[in-house]
Amino acid sequence: MIRTVQFRFGSAGPWSTTRTTTIAGAPLDGANGALDIVEDGATRPAALTLRGVASNVRYATRAELTQLRAVQEDLGRPAATCAALIPITKSAEWWALSQDERRAIFEEQSHHNATGLRYLPQIARKLYHGRDLGEPFDFLTWFEFAPEHEGLFDDLVGALRASPEWAFVTREVDIRLRRSPSD
Amino acid sequence: MIRTVQFRFGSAGPWSTTRTTTIAGAPLDGANGALDIVEDGATRPAALTLRGVASNVRYATRAELTQLRAVQEDLGRPAATCAALIPITKSAEWWALSQDERRAIFEEQSHHNATGLRYLPQIARKLYHGRDLGEPFDFLTWFEFAPEHEGLFDDLVGALRASPEWAFVTREVDIRLRRSPSD
Repeated sequence: MIRTVQFRFGSAGPWSTTRTTTIAGAPLDGANGALDIVEDGATRPAALTLRGVASNVRYATRAELTQLRAVQEDLGRPAATCAALIPITKSAEWWALSQDERRAIFEEQSHHNATGLRYLPQIARKLYHGRDLGEPFDFLTWFEFAPEHEGLFDDLVGALRASPEWAFVTREVDIRLRRSPSD
Repeated sequence: MIRTVQFRFGSAGPWSTTRTTTIAGAPLDGANGALDIVEDGATRPAALTLRGVASNVRYATRAELTQLRAVQEDLGRPAATCAALIPITKSAEWWALSQDERRAIFEEQSHHNATGLRYLPQIARKLYHGRDLGEPFDFLTWFEFAPEHEGLFDDLVGALRASPEWAFVTREVDIRLRRSPSD
């Protein structure tokens, strides 16, 4: 069963925003304070709510999935007290491309999965899709890592942002968060 | 801008249901009477509302898109007074496949695009995605054709239903409709 996940910024939640940086396009008002991530369908008031669904994979081959799943770790590790929420929107030109054209840019030219693999298992990751929901962001990418791996995470997003795929990114906001180890 | 389309069965609308056949899975209550297709976001009462979004292509290559677009015709042709709405759901097994596995079943094994191409331009077609919206059907496929091409349309759906891809279809309802030529 497909479930919509809500990232709710406001006064309550286990995560605290430490820094919000606009990488491309319009800034995102309200992406600060506490963050709660809820999986039920109820819409409750919040300063800012971003929605997405964990859907099927769009580009990865079976060989890539096998490689990634052999190494990746789950969200919620006790030591992973740092997180990043990176909402991303791609251009109309990207979405008008055929499947083989998008795949070629994503992996053969930009090595998106291969790059991600190099940062496993330290960086745990989950992708949510918002475009078909009519959300302002096509993707919400959520990452968790230990404080000592923040530099590694910066390398990962730097490598992706330097790739040909990122020429199609029209809006990107990089929201860093912390939670207390006792949470 | 992504827009959700609503297929609303009830008392008013340009299309009239002539026959509803359950092909696989549970029957669909309320798929009869008049049908209205609305593109705005308002939710109004109806006996049955099915929702979907016209999203980016998921499998077609550039070569296939070029072939299809050179021949296909738009919806709304005056002579196309027959239509079919075929809501489809695929299994969890299908959605757990990798992109290359789904593509191979869709085209290399089942010739989905190649089969559709053989029935152009007589059959006009549009696909809406419902899975990420949490709808009961993963896809809503809408077809329009002239009355003299109903046999051709039956051949098309017959060919698809006999393909390996259809082993993954867990629910399918075939709703046939007519409108008056003056509409």
